[in-house]
Amino acid sequence: MESATKLAVLNGRIIDMTEATLSVQDRELQYGFGVYESLRVVGKVVVYPLEHIERLFFSAEGIGLRHNFSVDEVYSWLKSLIEADNLSDATVRILLMGGMEARLFITTSPLIVYPDSFYSEGIRTISYAGERLLPRYKTCSLLMNYLALREAGTVGAFEALLIDRRNLILEGTRSNVFACEGESIFTAPSEKVLEGVTRDKIIKAIGELGFSVIFEAPSKQDVLDGRYDEMFISSTSMGAMPVASFDGFTFSETRKRAQPIHELIRRWEVDTLH
Amino acid sequence: MESATKLAVLNGRIIDMTEATLSVQDRELQYGFGVYESLRVVGKVVVYPLEHIERLFFSAEGIGLRHNFSVDEVYSWLKSLIEADNLSDATVRILLMGGMEARLFITTSPLIVYPDSFYSEGIRTISYAGERLLPRYKTCSLLMNYLALREAGTVGAFEALLIDRRNLILEGTRSNVFACEGESIFTAPSEKVLEGVTRDKIIKAIGELGFSVIFEAPSKQDVLDGRYDEMFISSTSMGAMPVASFDGFTFSETRKRAQPIHELIRRWEVDTLH
Repeated sequence: MESATKLAVLNGRIIDMTEATLSVQDRELQYGFGVYESLRVVGKVVVYPLEHIERLFFSAEGIGLRHNFSVDEVYSWLKSLIEADNLSDATVRILLMGGMEARLFITTSPLIVYPDSFYSEGIRTISYAGERLLPRYKTCSLLMNYLALREAGTVGAFEALLIDRRNLILEGTRSNVFACEGESIFTAPSEKVLEGVTRDKIIKAIGELGFSVIFEAPSKQDVLDGRYDEMFISSTSMGAMPVASFDGFTFSETRKRAQPIHELIRRWEVDTLH
Repeated sequence: MESATKLAVLNGRIIDMTEATLSVQDRELQYGFGVYESLRVVGKVVVYPLEHIERLFFSAEGIGLRHNFSVDEVYSWLKSLIEADNLSDATVRILLMGGMEARLFITTSPLIVYPDSFYSEGIRTISYAGERLLPRYKTCSLLMNYLALREAGTVGAFEALLIDRRNLILEGTRSNVFACEGESIFTAPSEKVLEGVTRDKIIKAIGELGFSVIFEAPSKQDVLDGRYDEMFISSTSMGAMPVASFDGFTFSETRKRAQPIHELIRRWEVDTLH
């Protein structure tokens, strides 16, 4: 664990991390009128920066959050911060808050690294009934995610998978979800979920590895009935992480598809870095 | 308009308003894991302070937000702030954020006063399809309310009324809703909406004035079909405010029930103050 970083960016200006604050009287803070992204910095290099910044702007446009920032300038600010703070490995958060004048914060924290056992044995998940507001956008409307994740934590699970009113598993609180049956890998259609940057890479990897992606959300009942022998979740920080169990149902496989997919997308990351 | 106030309270301590901030790296800020209340101070006295602080704690309990604050101490902090800042008339906001250690902020702003014409002529409203997460609690999950209110503003309306999936009008973005047919006044059942402090007073006033309250949410279609001749909305800052129109449908009455109800609940407020 590296020491806590000390700098941040506000609208292009390098500031002390302690200045990266919002007034509790800020109307947009009160309403949660903002969008965000989480990125990885590995060996001083940002992984897929343009995709993330473009998705940040896609989310902003989705909720009608006006700003005058450009992808290039945000990327240059991010690089300046990495340089100024001498960051090697880090998790970066970009927060874009609306308002009369939009505010863009870039903050960093230690790179999230999960134990190897999470990848070899898989993680536990539970179901949680709920649907995100405006699921295609990564907004600050996250109370349901917080409650779902807390419920997972109380039973020792790592993630909660959100179940919609038709009993379908659309996504996790901070991940996309994939369920495997033979050579087919099922996931929710793109218009129903956050089109994760990592999700896109996984869809590409599924094709490269000779599997087929099917854009149908797995139903909770089908999972519990044993239709799928393997399941995995994905995010920027996790990559492809196998699911050992869902609501107590144990999958027979945890590595057959998840492992080669995870290895391939992490290799692509490294390739883009050099 | 009085000048901007300069003090606030954080966990019982009087602080400068500029210190009433949250770090953008605060996990509970990021997830919107908090609850709040808005109160009125009139002539140096807080209107229904205990009801509001109790509802704040009811909301906190509803989302499992743990804290060690008591109603009495929060009320004493509020009184200290009014004294220290020499406030006569003000709007007070209490924000309770979760976390390893809960944080309770009290901030103030000028008292919201609406033009007389809003009460004599009524205000315009539009419909907005959406349901609040956990509608019984006053949480920081407000992005939908922001979007709905913004849509109202773009067409010159004052409030957006939220329509649930059964086409019922449950509540406004920051108000409760009442629809009148003869001596009957319809409003959504308590378990479906925020049980507003002012809503409770209005329900009491409806009885005192010889009308009947019926706990059934009016449907959008019934309103547009002309079933109700009068509609009004309520909140702490508005009292009972008549609705002139809803999605272009114009009500024939704006004062018959709303005006005596508004006058009665404001009179009760004054009575409690002296």
